[in-house]
Amino acid sequence: MAKVLIVYAHQSSGSFNAAAKDLAVEVLTAQGCSVEVSDLYAMDFKAAATVDDIKGEIQDPDHFSYKRETKIAFEERRLSEDITKEHAKIIEADLIIFQFPMYWFGLPAIMKGWIDRVLTNGFAFSTEQLYSQGVFKDKKTMLSFTTGSLESMFSPTGINGDMNVTLWPIQNGILNYCGFQVLAPQIFWAPALAAAEDRKGMLEGWRTRLQGLLEEKPLSFIPLDSFDQKTFQLKPDVHEQHASKEFGLTVGIHLNKPLPPHSQMKAGC
Amino acid sequence: MAKVLIVYAHQSSGSFNAAAKDLAVEVLTAQGCSVEVSDLYAMDFKAAATVDDIKGEIQDPDHFSYKRETKIAFEERRLSEDITKEHAKIIEADLIIFQFPMYWFGLPAIMKGWIDRVLTNGFAFSTEQLYSQGVFKDKKTMLSFTTGSLESMFSPTGINGDMNVTLWPIQNGILNYCGFQVLAPQIFWAPALAAAEDRKGMLEGWRTRLQGLLEEKPLSFIPLDSFDQKTFQLKPDVHEQHASKEFGLTVGIHLNKPLPPHSQMKAGC
Repeated sequence: MAKVLIVYAHQSSGSFNAAAKDLAVEVLTAQGCSVEVSDLYAMDFKAAATVDDIKGEIQDPDHFSYKRETKIAFEERRLSEDITKEHAKIIEADLIIFQFPMYWFGLPAIMKGWIDRVLTNGFAFSTEQLYSQGVFKDKKTMLSFTTGSLESMFSPTGINGDMNVTLWPIQNGILNYCGFQVLAPQIFWAPALAAAEDRKGMLEGWRTRLQGLLEEKPLSFIPLDSFDQKTFQLKPDVHEQHASKEFGLTVGIHLNKPLPPHSQMKAGC
Repeated sequence: MAKVLIVYAHQSSGSFNAAAKDLAVEVLTAQGCSVEVSDLYAMDFKAAATVDDIKGEIQDPDHFSYKRETKIAFEERRLSEDITKEHAKIIEADLIIFQFPMYWFGLPAIMKGWIDRVLTNGFAFSTEQLYSQGVFKDKKTMLSFTTGSLESMFSPTGINGDMNVTLWPIQNGILNYCGFQVLAPQIFWAPALAAAEDRKGMLEGWRTRLQGLLEEKPLSFIPLDSFDQKTFQLKPDVHEQHASKEFGLTVGIHLNKPLPPHSQMKAGC
């Protein structure tokens, strides 16, 4: 019986994002999953990474480094309670769904604050445990979000550019970095511009997807052992294997080739 | 005499980021600029976009939309004071420098909160005024930030992928979207891993750059009139003009071609 954590960021229980979250709770619970929700606005979740996140002494107060000091505080169990509570939820979860409205081509600040503060150095990653060898490699995660713009505006010839590119820093730099198996994002394109009937259709699509969600294959990223351990560059033999291929390996690690289409949006690309 | 606003996010006055900010204040002031600093942690700047940002009545409390409600509140001068103060600073500024440590391939949450809350719908953009016709087209801006990783790790064959891709959602999706002329980013690669002498060298490089900063050419983005006004797709003739070129137009709007190298990092690419 899978455990699911939904990290949810919308101010209103009457919003489309709330409906998407409620539907996930309903469908996953009906499947026998236990579902927990971190409702960030309702929790008044602190977004800023500050010295208050650490109980007790700061090792180097004159040159305070959040990354360094929280690593020590984590090891010595001196992180603030709101962080350790989220840690416990992550440890329990088999799947984490991030449900949010895209703000400025990225996560709303309150959700970025959850990332900055909860994915603690030493808890969520280490120098040895990252990417495909990451701490959370047995867990799944996914983004589920609404946009303000239409899908066509987020194409490789559209005014906002390719959504694959916009998603790369989040899906690779945060989720894949911690080792998570990243399921394809659920993108609700511009529900605010859609007719009520179309919004309903979007939710029905989500309901159908949720029924098979736990069996989905994740997006493809590059295994850690494809990189040289010292230089962190793609190994020459991996590079050679892909020399004759049309597309790069993934959006960020593209070998100066065309980007693999949809690689941040569909499994098996 | 140019006016400069530095939006600064680091917890410690002893940090490398503080030194970079202090140096910018020093060099730009010596040139005759007036420099203002929004020190977000010192201001305890609120990061989360909430109903508290609006004074007076909410138009549709049952379906609260931050974007819609803050637009109305802006028009009726009912935004919270911390937002209107930042608006006044932006109006004054000829150049805005964002100084921060990169957190999780992006802005620290407190700075994302400044973006989410201060770049208000109707103040910073509108349906008619965006991208190269954006509200702030006569202003310049730039990112100045530290990384945790080495430069080689952020190459198109490096483990973190191409920094150009990571910067796209911020430089295009936020800064270019509002019309700003975006100067090339100042990237301080992994100062925490560098020797004291090398960190000093990084700051000396910044000092030299600051002396000519106001004369620099901005990065290239695609003019708004290259897109069809209805479909928001690249016009066929622009598409054709670039058919025989080796690289795409920019990182996000890449026409399924290889990404133009460094286009998010150097002017004239």
